[in-house]
Amino acid sequence: MRYVTYASADGPRVGALVDGEVADLGFDGDMVAFIEAGAPHARMRPVAGTPRLLAPLRPRSMRDFLQFKGHLDNALVRLGREIPQEFWTVPAYYKGMPDTVIGPGDVIPWPAYTDRLDHELELGCVIGRAGADIPAGRAADHIFGWTIWNDVSARDVQVREVPLSLGPAKAKDWDGSNVLGPCIVTHDEVDGQALDMAVRVNGEEWGRDNSASMRHGFAELIAYASQDQRLHPGELLGSGTASGGSGLEIDRWLAPGDRIEMEIEGIGVLANVVGEKRRKPWPSS
Amino acid sequence: MRYVTYASADGPRVGALVDGEVADLGFDGDMVAFIEAGAPHARMRPVAGTPRLLAPLRPRSMRDFLQFKGHLDNALVRLGREIPQEFWTVPAYYKGMPDTVIGPGDVIPWPAYTDRLDHELELGCVIGRAGADIPAGRAADHIFGWTIWNDVSARDVQVREVPLSLGPAKAKDWDGSNVLGPCIVTHDEVDGQALDMAVRVNGEEWGRDNSASMRHGFAELIAYASQDQRLHPGELLGSGTASGGSGLEIDRWLAPGDRIEMEIEGIGVLANVVGEKRRKPWPSS
Repeated sequence: MRYVTYASADGPRVGALVDGEVADLGFDGDMVAFIEAGAPHARMRPVAGTPRLLAPLRPRSMRDFLQFKGHLDNALVRLGREIPQEFWTVPAYYKGMPDTVIGPGDVIPWPAYTDRLDHELELGCVIGRAGADIPAGRAADHIFGWTIWNDVSARDVQVREVPLSLGPAKAKDWDGSNVLGPCIVTHDEVDGQALDMAVRVNGEEWGRDNSASMRHGFAELIAYASQDQRLHPGELLGSGTASGGSGLEIDRWLAPGDRIEMEIEGIGVLANVVGEKRRKPWPSS
Repeated sequence: MRYVTYASADGPRVGALVDGEVADLGFDGDMVAFIEAGAPHARMRPVAGTPRLLAPLRPRSMRDFLQFKGHLDNALVRLGREIPQEFWTVPAYYKGMPDTVIGPGDVIPWPAYTDRLDHELELGCVIGRAGADIPAGRAADHIFGWTIWNDVSARDVQVREVPLSLGPAKAKDWDGSNVLGPCIVTHDEVDGQALDMAVRVNGEEWGRDNSASMRHGFAELIAYASQDQRLHPGELLGSGTASGGSGLEIDRWLAPGDRIEMEIEGIGVLANVVGEKRRKPWPSS
């Protein structure tokens, strides 16, 4: 199944994509509650017209890993640095903020405090079944499905924040800094282990990779994250940026009005336009 | 006021501490909903006996800053490193995971994957009123109150994760890795700008500082975090570890059974015992 959250007259509702049309699933609650409830199909009814799709979910949490060597190579060579040896053995992650999520078609806000906005093409894995200490061999049982994650980043801020060893903060946190969508494809339909991934800007391909290039697969990421910690339905794990999945790697930079399309095999296309840089309101304190 | 969450026969409930006794506030919902609702006192009634206090809130988000130069000095001198210049100008933070929170009196779980468990004495600031682009001069209007935050850390894991530039991950994320409490003291009663902070292990003082030593005060932290991003009621901002607030700084290490007491002036004492190191279940994949 391909699940979506769509804008109804009564607010956001959970639906499914059937032959490209949205069907309502008769579920009162958000996508995380829907997943928690075991994805019940109470009564399916077609939705008239073409409703606007929203972010498929506001994840319960967002862990984002760093699993494409190609991306790291491309990014670090510009800084004259080598890949840290820990890359090979430690599937570390940073955490994004669920309140920042926007969806397909939304304008990507350009914060007032950055001049270097960049996209990141990532595969997102949505947890379905709760569990702790999940062995990699059983991780598949805990996967609900897959989505596309554009982890928008402010590169000028990132270089200032990272030396403090806390990871990115405002470099990745502002309202609208995480784009998810267009849908969640269930794990029985798509397996995230070897999916083609591509990003186009204004129709031109800027990067392409395959999720098979990940250093650790999602089974190992789930095993790592769940050590001594319960994973919950609706949590999101990200692959990290695919090789060529960011402009940083090729020294090409977004401008207001650019249209970003991220495509992942079996999931679809997540398309957004970059907004104008926000003007700061006059300081009032 | 001093607000708490206490264990009632019907589950966790919001209460207030009045002359050391818990009074129920007649509010149906958790602390975040209570703060969002403007902290209504519908009907106050004493609670019989001495109910167990729980974590005062499951924060909507947890941003943790790094604002005590003394802590950084103490920690970095052991690594032969100097304070990065960004410390002086960039109030960066990492994000904790709200699902990991435990409360006063709870046993601190010792994960199977670490041999170096460490405490961190921190002042926590709970957001009351929503807002974005909050100028430092108006930040006080957005503070609901103050609590104590023991940000428990696995130091052996932290040194493996930090080289990847994503900040701490499993070094600070497991069920029970964040202890909050014992209460939230409202901002009209306590101002977080100059509070004595101390940590004792088995009755012996291991560290002492004052929140006035913070490089940036909470007003500046709120201004930084809220740039182009709405803060919501129930979000938590942490000061970072006070000088001497962790064992790392003095090369003294926790052992199972140790009793940690964190005291912050005007808030109270947050006391917990460290649990036995968890034995991993036999791998079953």
